Amino acid sequence: MTSMFQRAKEASRTLMLLTDEQRSNVLLRLADRAESETAKLLAANAVDLQKLTPSDPLYDRLLLTPERIRGIAADLRNVAKLPSPLGIISKERTLPNGLYLRRISVPFGVIGVIFEARPNVCFDVFALCFKSGNVCLLKGSHSADESNRAIVALIHEVLQDSGICMDALTLLPPTHEATAELLGAVGYVDLCIPRGGRKLIDFVRDNARVPVIETGAGVVHAYFDKDGDLEKGRRIIANAKMRRVSVCNALDCLLVHRDREADIPALLAPMEGRVEIVTDVAAMGTEWMDYKLSLKVVDSLDEALAHIARYGSGHSECIITENEATAARFQQLVDAACVYVNAPTSFTDGAQFGLGAEIGISTQKLGPRGPMALEEMTTYKWLVNGSGQVRE
Amino acid sequence: MTSMFQRAKEASRTLMLLTDEQRSNVLLRLADRAESETAKLLAANAVDLQKLTPSDPLYDRLLLTPERIRGIAADLRNVAKLPSPLGIISKERTLPNGLYLRRISVPFGVIGVIFEARPNVCFDVFALCFKSGNVCLLKGSHSADESNRAIVALIHEVLQDSGICMDALTLLPPTHEATAELLGAVGYVDLCIPRGGRKLIDFVRDNARVPVIETGAGVVHAYFDKDGDLEKGRRIIANAKMRRVSVCNALDCLLVHRDREADIPALLAPMEGRVEIVTDVAAMGTEWMDYKLSLKVVDSLDEALAHIARYGSGHSECIITENEATAARFQQLVDAACVYVNAPTSFTDGAQFGLGAEIGISTQKLGPRGPMALEEMTTYKWLVNGSGQVRE
Repeated sequence: MTSMFQRAKEASRTLMLLTDEQRSNVLLRLADRAESETAKLLAANAVDLQKLTPSDPLYDRLLLTPERIRGIAADLRNVAKLPSPLGIISKERTLPNGLYLRRISVPFGVIGVIFEARPNVCFDVFALCFKSGNVCLLKGSHSADESNRAIVALIHEVLQDSGICMDALTLLPPTHEATAELLGAVGYVDLCIPRGGRKLIDFVRDNARVPVIETGAGVVHAYFDKDGDLEKGRRIIANAKMRRVSVCNALDCLLVHRDREADIPALLAPMEGRVEIVTDVAAMGTEWMDYKLSLKVVDSLDEALAHIARYGSGHSECIITENEATAARFQQLVDAACVYVNAPTSFTDGAQFGLGAEIGISTQKLGPRGPMALEEMTTYKWLVNGSGQVRE
Repeated sequence: MTSMFQRAKEASRTLMLLTDEQRSNVLLRLADRAESETAKLLAANAVDLQKLTPSDPLYDRLLLTPERIRGIAADLRNVAKLPSPLGIISKERTLPNGLYLRRISVPFGVIGVIFEARPNVCFDVFALCFKSGNVCLLKGSHSADESNRAIVALIHEVLQDSGICMDALTLLPPTHEATAELLGAVGYVDLCIPRGGRKLIDFVRDNARVPVIETGAGVVHAYFDKDGDLEKGRRIIANAKMRRVSVCNALDCLLVHRDREADIPALLAPMEGRVEIVTDVAAMGTEWMDYKLSLKVVDSLDEALAHIARYGSGHSECIITENEATAARFQQLVDAACVYVNAPTSFTDGAQFGLGAEIGISTQKLGPRGPMALEEMTTYKWLVNGSGQVRE
């Protein structure tokens, strides 16, 4: 696979020379082609699906339909029209000796993305990587391999028609060996993003020698403070828990101040009959991904903060309070990517934040944190221009 | 050691509550105390030094003197008066639904720093970590352990006198086991920065489970273009190579365009008798740390770019040319933290860049890149304030 990685690295240099218009045109052409080649994509998808029964939850995640492909095409057109994240000067100064310094945004280079099921991810990740000037190496799951290969073949056709190096995108074999080689490709892979469950992320963290961004794992809390508004609390908690239970920003644990214990039935009422409440201490720290919610009564804001520090995963946390000082202390002391006051964690999402798109939610502190879109897929370099100055 | 890491994590929350004035006052008090306790520091240092002969190069790196301690105190006062890097709002917007979003700079939390010899690093690293709100875990070398322990004891006294948790700084044992535990302390250590040679950095990259910033390794090139100015080239190359040969921004390899082969003797003249020129292909990619310089003649800008892509370490690279288009292409295509036109790589330094200080030069692309000072020791979080909005 080293030659694959070498070609990816070389391609990353050719991508730097494209204009944003060229990049966007490729995505627009790809959107058209995805729609006109829908039958071909569905045929490949059918091969993957026939290994499953429709009642398998994986079936729906794998499934492509004409409507879903129209949605993918719309997303591609949306990314095409976003402003380029490249060439942005974030610092600029002229030193007393006349040296002119600029800190300018540039692509990472080669980004590896490991993902599970959901063939639409091939389109999403390619679009965000390509628009931000990055080559991508995709490692998908075995169950979606026919679909992924058909999509990547389509993208390769569009790249070739556009006169762009096809190594801008490579689909790696759907094997553990490919994951291991990707994680060890020091010098070729500038960044690796695992998108998946806890097990995948732990494996990547334990084995990667290339830089990694952890995404997705979210043990999410809401704290209903003694000064919380009951009606807001009802709405926020129900929305955070039930909007979609299988996403990483979904609520996992509700903490309630002891003074408001009597309000718990009213707080939970909108979820009655749909969400199972779990008060077992052993359940604290569980990411449910299901219609379940841990519940704990706490004596103080500080106890809530300590609980979140112990069990949270640094994704999204929320307080419901009308007390501004309490809200400010919560936002100051909670160590998470997104800290909410009187709004549900359901909003943790690149599009909701106005970033235009999303490749994942980073839960680490080195590099981008929280929702990642185009800007978060760039790094920077310093350009220093002189006229023969030397250092004393 | 887990309880040490736990205490560090807890201390990181108490540090968040300090004001910048409190942080700066600790550093000013420490500067005074370092000067008034010079005798005690020198006595501890003498214990380390007596294991060495003065001719050992390590001796000078370990040595503390009254003058060096005055320099350390001056550096501490300098860091104290830098603006705080915390609480800076880098994005702010109100969404159509009324949600108010801010992206605000915050400390990483707990930073582990692994360093070799040079006891002054204890002061430097503590000052930069503390000013940026971070707890630090220091892992020094066995040879400097008496000195490091005396310095850390002094810092602990100042912290205690200031009513601040002493776990803001912990000196780990000078053992390989401590390094291994630090690198595996997922959930406690938010960032690890190895400061040292290639071997240390490779070990860290291969073993770390916590996020790491690679620093320091610099295989640095200068390319003298066919349109290069001879006099500028002479000055720049001599400065980049000879200013200090043991630092990471020192020049390692000179590439000269074939059309200017006849100018090579004049280009090298300022270094004559002091720098050994090496033309062996096997030497390419060597970080010399010595009065040696690799030399290669190339046929084109593209050959120079390919050479740098193959052998460079992403630290600092330089072109000497009067051709603006050539300069622009070089700055666009060279993938390094700092890319120079007509100025020596000697300038790659936090203080020279106007950042006020420096903890190291990052050679990776995830997280800060190039010189790291206070701003580069922060991450950010998103604060989201609502009034009961929910997501559709």
